[in-house]
Amino acid sequence: MTPDDWLLLCRSVRFGDTDAAGVMHFPRLFSWCHEAYEESLERFGLTAAEIFPRPEHSPAVALPVVHCSADYQRPLACGDALTIALRPERIDPGCFELHYRFSRSGEAVAQALTRHLAIDSLSRRRCALPAGIQRWLEASGLGRGVTPLP
Amino acid sequence: MTPDDWLLLCRSVRFGDTDAAGVMHFPRLFSWCHEAYEESLERFGLTAAEIFPRPEHSPAVALPVVHCSADYQRPLACGDALTIALRPERIDPGCFELHYRFSRSGEAVAQALTRHLAIDSLSRRRCALPAGIQRWLEASGLGRGVTPLP
Amino acid sequence: MTPDDWLLLCRSVRFGDTDAAGVMHFPRLFSWCHEAYEESLERFGLTAAEIFPRPEHSPAVALPVVHCSADYQRPLACGDALTIALRPERIDPGCFELHYRFSRSGEAVAQALTRHLAIDSLSRRRCALPAGIQRWLEASGLGRGVTPLP
Amino acid sequence: MTPDDWLLLCRSVRFGDTDAAGVMHFPRLFSWCHEAYEESLERFGLTAAEIFPRPEHSPAVALPVVHCSADYQRPLACGDALTIALRPERIDPGCFELHYRFSRSGEAVAQALTRHLAIDSLSRRRCALPAGIQRWLEASGLGRGVTPLP
Repeated sequence: MTPDDWLLLCRSVRFGDTDAAGVMHFPRLFSWCHEAYEESLERFGLTAAEIFPRPEHSPAVALPVVHCSADYQRPLACGDALTIALRPERIDPGCFELHYRFSRSGEAVAQALTRHLAIDSLSRRRCALPAGIQRWLEASGLGRGVTPLP
Repeated sequence: MTPDDWLLLCRSVRFGDTDAAGVMHFPRLFSWCHEAYEESLERFGLTAAEIFPRPEHSPAVALPVVHCSADYQRPLACGDALTIALRPERIDPGCFELHYRFSRSGEAVAQALTRHLAIDSLSRRRCALPAGIQRWLEASGLGRGVTPLP
Repeated sequence: MTPDDWLLLCRSVRFGDTDAAGVMHFPRLFSWCHEAYEESLERFGLTAAEIFPRPEHSPAVALPVVHCSADYQRPLACGDALTIALRPERIDPGCFELHYRFSRSGEAVAQALTRHLAIDSLSRRRCALPAGIQRWLEASGLGRGVTPLP
Repeated sequence: MTPDDWLLLCRSVRFGDTDAAGVMHFPRLFSWCHEAYEESLERFGLTAAEIFPRPEHSPAVALPVVHCSADYQRPLACGDALTIALRPERIDPGCFELHYRFSRSGEAVAQALTRHLAIDSLSRRRCALPAGIQRWLEASGLGRGVTPLP
């Protein structure tokens, strides 16, 4: 398994993603980002239960988004097939960023960024990133040397 | 305070509620229903913290939706001002239904229904409705004798 | 290609699908339904552009949802892998229904229904279903004789 | 009417805004931003029909979001009452930004930014901002001299 297996994802624009201007409604991009992040962890081998809260089971560490941004380069219509390239980046022992590049038939259409902070679920104080996330960050970095993302 | 104060609510259709057909995207109606229900409880005097889970505080009883339905009579466009008339109905000691009638300038445009079951948050077994919800159901019923909803 | 290829779909519950009760927020089921319907048409060979409006191109016939309903049998948590079985049913020359059965590891967890009416995009009057939808409805029905859905 | 009437808005966090971590799901902030923007225009006296597309009526100029960002300072729980202070800023004759400050009981909890570009609805080329938006931008600026936003 190469990093591309868990850092290159696909999705189609669906009717419910659009608004009355006929194109993707801008906050939806962040839903796609978070779903791509979840799918990436899953493909890498981390279960949702290890990372995300469920009833009767909350991981010891939460990873809330504390900052995000997006740039919209092309309007996206229902049915468009998108490729999402993820580039995770460790910022410090308790923080990472995720860069997303969206393209359609090879053309860049949007990009986005989310910054995640590790906090203790109970005390809500900053803490170290969970071991699984650290492995995923490290493995992502290794891949970049070999096959740089577009 | 008459029941109309907490059973007659208003909202406007917003751009993000629409899809590429130019009108309200059908699942949004249920978001409006649940927000109207929350606002109704709030106006009646029940705080969100008493009824809905928050971090570090879950009410002893949860009220999940186990069934819902909707009928769409007119397309709804961005900017349309809607009135929502709620009619809560106690089904049995552990279950209630909420009927919603949406109108625009007096014309019926949609209606919906949600059925809520009381379950113990820990065991997830059926239990009695919380006292606050029971008071709200009773007060709603009283009002109906005097000023029947349309 | 057998009907199962376009009538049996998969999706995972994502973090953004949940609410503070820790499980899938009930209106999300209808978003999953509509996305499954779109994916089914796509797999069957109908492009989104033929069926759904896009900027500068609206199909002659729109297919708004005029009624929907859902039953929630089990709470769904982040990461749960679901199977969605679709059963389209022609009601009359200008109307069809879509029945959805959601299951997790073979266990039924939810079911839903959407009813779609064909209307002329300009006059907004009822009209006949588009030819593509008619082919999809017919092909779906054929399959049922051979491999009945659960 | 002073600018505060159309630049200071209120909203409550609703159950459907939260995720399984028990707090507001981050992309929802942008939905609140856009709804606050729409409400601001409405209070200022601009109808939705003048600014946003509807079936059979699209304004000559569209105002898509080409960039956005957000900072999350405090977790937001169901029932929290928020104040949203808007600060519109004209960037050039065909572009404006909107700055949003969210507070709860006087405490800053989040801030966000959206950048909107005026484009001709048909040609999709850049053009001048609509007259109504220009009046709203100007009136917002006037107010700031007298009562500076926090």
